[in-house]
Amino acid sequence: MSFTYLTNVPLAQAKADYLAALLDRGFAAKTETIPVRASFGRLTAQAVYANINAPHYAASAMDGVALRAKDTFGATETTPVTLAPEQFTVVDTGDPIPPDCDAVVMVEDVVQNDDESITLHAVAAPWQHIRQIGEDICAGEMILPSFTEITPAAIGAMIAGGVQALEVVKKPVVGIIPTGDEIVPPCADPKPGDILEFNSSIFSAMLQSWGAEPKVYPIVKDDFDLICAALAEAAGECDMVLLNAGSSAGREDYSAEAIRRLGEVLCHGIAIKPGKPAILGMKGEKPILGVPGYPVSGIIVIEELLRPLIDAWYGAGQAERPAVDAVLTRPVVSGLKYQEFVRVRMGYVGDRLTASPLPRGSGVVSSFMKADGMAVIPQGTEGCAAGETVRVTLLRPEQKLRNTLVVIGSHDPLMDELANLVHRADRSMFLSSAHVGSMGGIMAVRRGEAHAAGIHLLDTETGEYNKTYLRKYFPNGGVHLVRCVGRRQGLMLQKGNPFGVRKFGDIMKDNLRYVNRQKGSGTRILMDYLCVKDGVDPARVYGYEREEMTHNSVAVQIAGDSADAGMGIYSTAKLYDLDFLPICDEEYDVLIPDSAWDTPLIRRLIETLQSDAFRERIEAMGGYTLDRPGEEIFWQE
Amino acid sequence: MSFTYLTNVPLAQAKADYLAALLDRGFAAKTETIPVRASFGRLTAQAVYANINAPHYAASAMDGVALRAKDTFGATETTPVTLAPEQFTVVDTGDPIPPDCDAVVMVEDVVQNDDESITLHAVAAPWQHIRQIGEDICAGEMILPSFTEITPAAIGAMIAGGVQALEVVKKPVVGIIPTGDEIVPPCADPKPGDILEFNSSIFSAMLQSWGAEPKVYPIVKDDFDLICAALAEAAGECDMVLLNAGSSAGREDYSAEAIRRLGEVLCHGIAIKPGKPAILGMKGEKPILGVPGYPVSGIIVIEELLRPLIDAWYGAGQAERPAVDAVLTRPVVSGLKYQEFVRVRMGYVGDRLTASPLPRGSGVVSSFMKADGMAVIPQGTEGCAAGETVRVTLLRPEQKLRNTLVVIGSHDPLMDELANLVHRADRSMFLSSAHVGSMGGIMAVRRGEAHAAGIHLLDTETGEYNKTYLRKYFPNGGVHLVRCVGRRQGLMLQKGNPFGVRKFGDIMKDNLRYVNRQKGSGTRILMDYLCVKDGVDPARVYGYEREEMTHNSVAVQIAGDSADAGMGIYSTAKLYDLDFLPICDEEYDVLIPDSAWDTPLIRRLIETLQSDAFRERIEAMGGYTLDRPGEEIFWQE
Repeated sequence: MSFTYLTNVPLAQAKADYLAALLDRGFAAKTETIPVRASFGRLTAQAVYANINAPHYAASAMDGVALRAKDTFGATETTPVTLAPEQFTVVDTGDPIPPDCDAVVMVEDVVQNDDESITLHAVAAPWQHIRQIGEDICAGEMILPSFTEITPAAIGAMIAGGVQALEVVKKPVVGIIPTGDEIVPPCADPKPGDILEFNSSIFSAMLQSWGAEPKVYPIVKDDFDLICAALAEAAGECDMVLLNAGSSAGREDYSAEAIRRLGEVLCHGIAIKPGKPAILGMKGEKPILGVPGYPVSGIIVIEELLRPLIDAWYGAGQAERPAVDAVLTRPVVSGLKYQEFVRVRMGYVGDRLTASPLPRGSGVVSSFMKADGMAVIPQGTEGCAAGETVRVTLLRPEQKLRNTLVVIGSHDPLMDELANLVHRADRSMFLSSAHVGSMGGIMAVRRGEAHAAGIHLLDTETGEYNKTYLRKYFPNGGVHLVRCVGRRQGLMLQKGNPFGVRKFGDIMKDNLRYVNRQKGSGTRILMDYLCVKDGVDPARVYGYEREEMTHNSVAVQIAGDSADAGMGIYSTAKLYDLDFLPICDEEYDVLIPDSAWDTPLIRRLIETLQSDAFRERIEAMGGYTLDRPGEEIFWQE
Repeated sequence: MSFTYLTNVPLAQAKADYLAALLDRGFAAKTETIPVRASFGRLTAQAVYANINAPHYAASAMDGVALRAKDTFGATETTPVTLAPEQFTVVDTGDPIPPDCDAVVMVEDVVQNDDESITLHAVAAPWQHIRQIGEDICAGEMILPSFTEITPAAIGAMIAGGVQALEVVKKPVVGIIPTGDEIVPPCADPKPGDILEFNSSIFSAMLQSWGAEPKVYPIVKDDFDLICAALAEAAGECDMVLLNAGSSAGREDYSAEAIRRLGEVLCHGIAIKPGKPAILGMKGEKPILGVPGYPVSGIIVIEELLRPLIDAWYGAGQAERPAVDAVLTRPVVSGLKYQEFVRVRMGYVGDRLTASPLPRGSGVVSSFMKADGMAVIPQGTEGCAAGETVRVTLLRPEQKLRNTLVVIGSHDPLMDELANLVHRADRSMFLSSAHVGSMGGIMAVRRGEAHAAGIHLLDTETGEYNKTYLRKYFPNGGVHLVRCVGRRQGLMLQKGNPFGVRKFGDIMKDNLRYVNRQKGSGTRILMDYLCVKDGVDPARVYGYEREEMTHNSVAVQIAGDSADAGMGIYSTAKLYDLDFLPICDEEYDVLIPDSAWDTPLIRRLIETLQSDAFRERIEAMGGYTLDRPGEEIFWQE
C-alpha cells in the first residue's frame, strides 16, 4: 500500500489558475451553424442580419380596394368621386398592393355601383392602410447582436428576415468516463460489492442544465492502460473530459498518472470538503478533470470546478446563485484546512429561516437530493455554533421554502405518506420531515425550528402518552397536540424467528445481534423502560450501542442479516417481511406550536390527517389504528 | 363579403370558463413511464419508492482489515491482541464486509507480522468503519413524492435505490396547424403576396419553454374541408391543438366553423388587444384554440389562453412572472373595450425605470423580440399618460435592464454595430437603441430617459453642428458631447437614376415619388432647410407627407420600387445598392447627460468608439469619416 500526498490548494486559487492555464493553451468556445427553427435558447456567435425585408412587399393592411390616391383628390360627402373598374383592385388584408397603386380604402368606406364602378366620399391619403415594405425588419439590418440568447420572437424575426440558419456557440461536449472494478451498470439486483454506476447520470443532468452536452463512455476497469486508452479517446472526441473515480491517493488510483501521461496535471488536491482529491488536468486546451468517486464529492467538484469552465466557454460571468442568511440549528464542526460545503435542510418557521445540517457522508446521495441549500464554511474556521447565522446558497426557490411545512421529530414512514398527500392536495405546499426522535422533536418545537413534531412518549408512571411530556417541557403552554395514529410496537425479528424469541428478555440470548435506536427516540425510551421493567441488563444485549435513526434502517439490518432483532413498528416489519413480536400499542401524535397553529400549512396537514386518502394509505400499511385522526386532544394555553 | 360578429369576453372570465369547461369534460394530465436516466426536469406522477437498499451490502468505509469486534476485546497499548490470518480479511473502501465480521480497523492501526498474523493495540467497537446497509436509502422508503421535479441528485438516488424507470407526467403534445393560401414555408426568396410561415416556429419554442411538446402539421390551404380534415387528424394525435390564422371574422375565416363541426366553440372573441379574434374551442376534453394569424396577436393569445392550460396539466398554479413598476415615457391610448398588452422597451436611467411603448402593430414580430416588458392597460381605461407609473411584466431579467445602456435619438445603422461591439467586449453589458430622431434624443436626455443620444443637428445660421442646439436646450448645462463620426448625407435614388436627378430641387419632378423622414429627425430638418435654401415647395414634392423612421426604411421603399428618392446617408444607399447624390457632410455625435457620464456603461461606450473593431466596421460600411471618435468635444457645466 503506497500513498501519493495530495496538495491542498484553496478553491478560489485553483479555479483561477485552472482557467488561466486553459486560456493560455487556447481554451475557447467553438461555434456551429444550425437551422433557425432549432435555435431556441442557443447563443448567437455572430451578429445576425436580415436577408430580406419583412414584409417583403407593400401589403394591404385592410380588406378593401387598392387605388391611386391622386384619383380620389377632391372627393367629399357632397362631391363624391367615382372610379372605373380599371382604377382599383379589390384586396384582402395581406394582399400585395398592385403596381401604381399607393393607397387602400376600407371596404366600409366603398360604395359599390351596379356597373362595377365604385364611389368614394372622402379623399384617400397616399400610403394609407398600406403596410410598407420593411415595416417590421429591413434587409441588411442587424436582427440580433453577437452572444445573444435566442428567444421565440427572435426565431420569428429571423425567419421573417429570410434567415434560415445561423452561427451559434456550440454546446461543449463533455465526456464522462466511469472507472472502477466494482462499478456496474444500474440494475435492481446488484451482487454484494457491486456499486451501481449512477454518477454519470447525475453529472449528465447537471451538464445539461448548464448548456453542455454529456457523452457517457462505457465503464472502464481499474487498469492503467485501459484508462489511458479511454482518456485518449474521450479527449479526442470531446471538448472537456471528466474522469470519474480513482482520483484519491489509494492503491488503485491511476487517474492522475493517466492524465499526466496524456497531457498535464495542474494540481491534485483542493482545499475543499467533500471533494479534496480532485485532479485539475488538461490535454492542450481541453480540461481533463479527475472527479472523486463518491457522488456528493463528485457533484461539488463538478459544480465548483467544471461549471466555471462552461460559463467561460459561453463567455458569461460566473452565474450567481441566490444566497440567503439562515440560522444554524445544530453546530457544524469543520477543519481549519478546508472550505467545507454542508448540505442543509431549510425552513421558514415564523419569520426565521433555519438551516439544519444533513448527514455529511460523501456517499449519501439522498442527502443532496433532500438539501434545500448549501452552507459554505470558509477555510480557516473551525465551524459554526448552533444559533449562528450562516450564508447559504439556495438549491431550491425561496418561495418553495416559504410554503414548506417543517416537521422534525420521531420517525414513522407515514410522514413520507403525509408529505405526498399534502402536496397532491395542494401542489404549492410541501412537507419536509427530519427524523431526530420524539425528544428531538420537542426540543425543535421549543427552539422554534419546526412547525410540527411527531411524538410518542410514554409516561411510565401513568401509562399516558405524550401529554405528561408537554406539561413538563412547555410549562407555559403555547402548544397543541393533534391525534395522529395508534401504532403497534414490538420486536422485529429475522424471518422464521431463528433465535426463538418469545418475550422481550430474549434479546439477551447468546449470539443474538441486537440493533438499537438512537437516544432520545421514543422507541429507545420504550426499549430502556422495558429493560428496567423486564430486568434486562443492557450490558448483556450484544449491539445495544449500535444505533440506527429510523424504523426502516433497523429493519434493513435485520433483513440484510447484519442483525437479528430490534424494536420497531409493525408496518415496518411487514414492509421488510420480518417476523414481529408485538409488545405494546402506543399513541403517535403531532405536536404543533401556537405560532404555527392557525396557518394554511397546518390547516392543510390536519385536513390531510382527516382525509380518506390518508386512511386508505394507513390501512394498507398495516399495524396502525385510526381513531379520529386530526382531532385536537390537548391544548395548553 | 359577410361578417360574423365576435363576442368580447373579458380575459379573466374567458380563462376561467375555458378551464372549467375543459375540466368538466375530463381534461387531465396523462402519464408515461420513462427511464430514470432520461428523467431530468420531469415531474413524478406517483411517489417513487426504493426497490433496494443503498448501500445494498455492509461495506468497509476504510482501507484496512475486517474482523469480529469481540476478538479484539481487551486490546490496549500494553496488552495487544494478535489475530490469526483466518480471523481477519483485508478490505478496501467499498468492499463488502465478510459474513461474521462486524468491524473494520484502519490500515494505519494494524501491525502486520511476519507470520501473516496481525497485532492490534486497541479495541475495535462493533460496527466501526462500516457503512451500514441502507445508510443512504432503505428499500421500501419513499424517495420522491408525487408531482416533484426531478433533480440530478434525485436521479442518482433513484438509481441507487434500484429504480430504473418511473411514471412521470407526460409532456402535453400540442399540434400546430398553420393555414392560409398565402402562407409558404420559410425561404429567402418569397414571391409578392407570400407570407413566410414562422408562427409555428415561434409557438414551438414557447411551448417547449413551458414543458409541452410541439407537433407542427403541414400548411393547409383556405379550404373548409381540408381544414376540417387537418383538425380531426391533429385532435386525434395530440393533447391540445392550435389552429393558426383564420380566426377573425373575414371571408376566408373558416376556423370557428371547422372547430364547431369537430367539437364545440365556447367563445369567439376575447376583450384583449392584440388577440381579440381568438376562438376557445374543444373536442371532448381536448382544447382546440383558434389563434389569430398576426404573430404578436398569436403570441399573446397563446401566452394568455394556452399557457394556463399547460400549467393546469402539470397541476401547477399559474406561473407568476416578475413584474415591476415603470414610468411611461410616452402616452398610451387604449380602447375602453379591451385589455391591452403594450410591448415596452425598458431602461434604468439613474434610479428611474422607464418603459417606452414599442410599435403596436400586431404584425411587427421584431417589436416583440425587442421588448423588455409588457405593460398591461386594464379593460375600462382609456390609456395612460406619459410620466404615469404602470405595472410591467418583465420579459427579461431585471439585472439585464440595469446593465443596459439606453440610447435614444437619431437613427444610424452604426448604433446596432456599437450594440454588438459593446456586448462583445463585455458580455454583461447591453446597448438598446431607439430611433426617434435627433430632437427626440435631446428631449429624451432632458427628461432623464436616456443615457445617450445620437444627434446631427445643423445650425443653419452658422453651419455648426449640434453645439448650438445644446446651448439652447441645456441652458444650465449638465451635458457632454462626444465625437462619433462624420457622415455623408444625400439623395438616395433608384438604381440607374431613371429620373435623372442631378440636384436637390429635382425631387419636384413630375411622377417622382419622394419618401420623407419623420419630423424632428436631423435628416428631416436638413431636408426642410434644403427646401428653403433651394426654393423647393413641399406641396410640389409627391410623398413629402410620407414619413419613415430610419434611413434603412427610406432606402427599402426606393429599392422596392414604392418610391424614387429620399434623403439618407451613403452607407445605407450602399447597403441597398442605390444611386446616391451627395449633398453634404455632417457631424453625428453622441450627447451624454452628466448623470450618466461617469458610469461603467458610458466608459465602455467611449472605449468602444475608440476601438479598432469600431473603426474596421465603420470603414467597411462606407460613407463615414473618423476623426478621433470618443473624444469629448463639448462640455457645458
